[in-house]
Amino acid sequence: VPLLECVPNISEGRRLDVVERLARAATPAGVRLLDLTSDPDHNRSVLTLAGEADALLAGMLALFEAAAVIDLRQHSGVHPRIGAVDVVPFVPLAGSTMDEAVTTARQLAPLVAERFALPVYLYEHAARRDDRRALPQIRRGGFEGLAEKMRSPGGVPDFGPAQPHPTSGATVIGARFFLIAFNVLLATADVGVARRLARSVRESSGGLPAVRALGVWLASRGCAQVSLNLLDYRQTSPLTALRHIQAEAERVGVTVRATELVGLMPEDAAVTQAGEALLLGRPLTAGIIEKRLAETGR
Amino acid sequence: VPLLECVPNISEGRRLDVVERLARAATPAGVRLLDLTSDPDHNRSVLTLAGEADALLAGMLALFEAAAVIDLRQHSGVHPRIGAVDVVPFVPLAGSTMDEAVTTARQLAPLVAERFALPVYLYEHAARRDDRRALPQIRRGGFEGLAEKMRSPGGVPDFGPAQPHPTSGATVIGARFFLIAFNVLLATADVGVARRLARSVRESSGGLPAVRALGVWLASRGCAQVSLNLLDYRQTSPLTALRHIQAEAERVGVTVRATELVGLMPEDAAVTQAGEALLLGRPLTAGIIEKRLAETGR
Repeated sequence: VPLLECVPNISEGRRLDVVERLARAATPAGVRLLDLTSDPDHNRSVLTLAGEADALLAGMLALFEAAAVIDLRQHSGVHPRIGAVDVVPFVPLAGSTMDEAVTTARQLAPLVAERFALPVYLYEHAARRDDRRALPQIRRGGFEGLAEKMRSPGGVPDFGPAQPHPTSGATVIGARFFLIAFNVLLATADVGVARRLARSVRESSGGLPAVRALGVWLASRGCAQVSLNLLDYRQTSPLTALRHIQAEAERVGVTVRATELVGLMPEDAAVTQAGEALLLGRPLTAGIIEKRLAETGR
Repeated sequence: VPLLECVPNISEGRRLDVVERLARAATPAGVRLLDLTSDPDHNRSVLTLAGEADALLAGMLALFEAAAVIDLRQHSGVHPRIGAVDVVPFVPLAGSTMDEAVTTARQLAPLVAERFALPVYLYEHAARRDDRRALPQIRRGGFEGLAEKMRSPGGVPDFGPAQPHPTSGATVIGARFFLIAFNVLLATADVGVARRLARSVRESSGGLPAVRALGVWLASRGCAQVSLNLLDYRQTSPLTALRHIQAEAERVGVTVRATELVGLMPEDAAVTQAGEALLLGRPLTAGIIEKRLAETGR
């Protein structure tokens, strides 16, 4: 039975009882919770789920329903967002295809729009317009700028009403490859350094391929952070991005304090990065006992 | 059906036709060849095999038979050795136990001794004497010093004749945990640097736990090498050893040119090292999609 991954990002990372309630709603029978990461400064939680398409659809509808408790007018956080359930990507796992992920996203979108009177944008592989592929473009301006943006032709949603839901905003649903969300905490209280490092590493300003990055301030930890989305670890791994940031940070006398993974990464990404770190001349995947056992097994 | 890993090291790394013939002998029906790594300077090849105990026993007997083509009196290489088939470790894989590996080693030892008139030493978990646990101790003095060593009480083999086989020497058979063989090539022609770095990293001279290391000269590549055996990557990973060597090498103005894996490593070792390289605060194993899928699967 083909499984999909589903990684809803919700705009609540402080009231952990609320997050738990939403996680329960999102995991009916047939949906497994693989990971739950909450961040108080981002004020955001990332659920990593796996299940068959039908079970995930049921879980997502229940999640949107339960997320009515989030009022974006009261929400603050350093991460960009336009919705209470901000973004819902479906990801093919081994045994499923991108087509299935796209189909599931496109099934969910009109249901959410109708049931919850919520504007829905389709993105990445599920997008119906080229300017809807990239998430940052859809989300630019945030919840605060959403009403105005929606009045422009570029802001018309794929489904649902032509104005934001008063408390839940809008939502973005789509299908994509594995994304690795990875944060680099800097030993500095100067968020300007984090912003400059983000600019130097992100693809859109001439940095590394398939990298998105933001410099943000973490009040709860008293340090600046470069928050990264690696859209394709085969193009740029977290380790490559980290090394770039370390080298640039060193030039201004700042060190990396720690890093954190938000959600999960595929095993292949980990193995690839180990090979990179070890300076091996050949891909480490070829040097893994379990892989060779699987390849040679009957 | 429980599989064991078996990693025979043979004293031939130049005549690749001979190596191939030996690899064929070692892999009767039921034995899979997972990896074969040959090195001309070490003049040694490492076969990584997997199979059930009985199939591996048959393969090893055929390997010892085929290895009669190796004449240690004509053999030179930078790696220590006492036998044509120098060492045969059995390693439990998922689904098998160290006890099964020990049993298999102890079954093979007397058969090899009788059939090939070869002195056999049992080592590590299969050892019957405490001074036989560590391989370097058994192998000290090499083939050239073997006859003399065997005349001392400490040199009496566990099975077989009391003097070396004239062309095949002796052999060491045992059971152990996964060992990672990892070589660090230095950008220097000074083997003295490699020897000092090996001394600084190996456990027996006060370096890192569960690390064995030798500094050797690679004539074919014109550079010095630190050749490492990581006996327990959970204590010291290849990456930790590499970083230690890099830091020490930097102090004498030498850089690391490349590294190489001899044989295979467990997936868990790769994932652990990726987490280490990424400066993550928690074990990366908990952040791998496939692991979480397996853990939450029915």
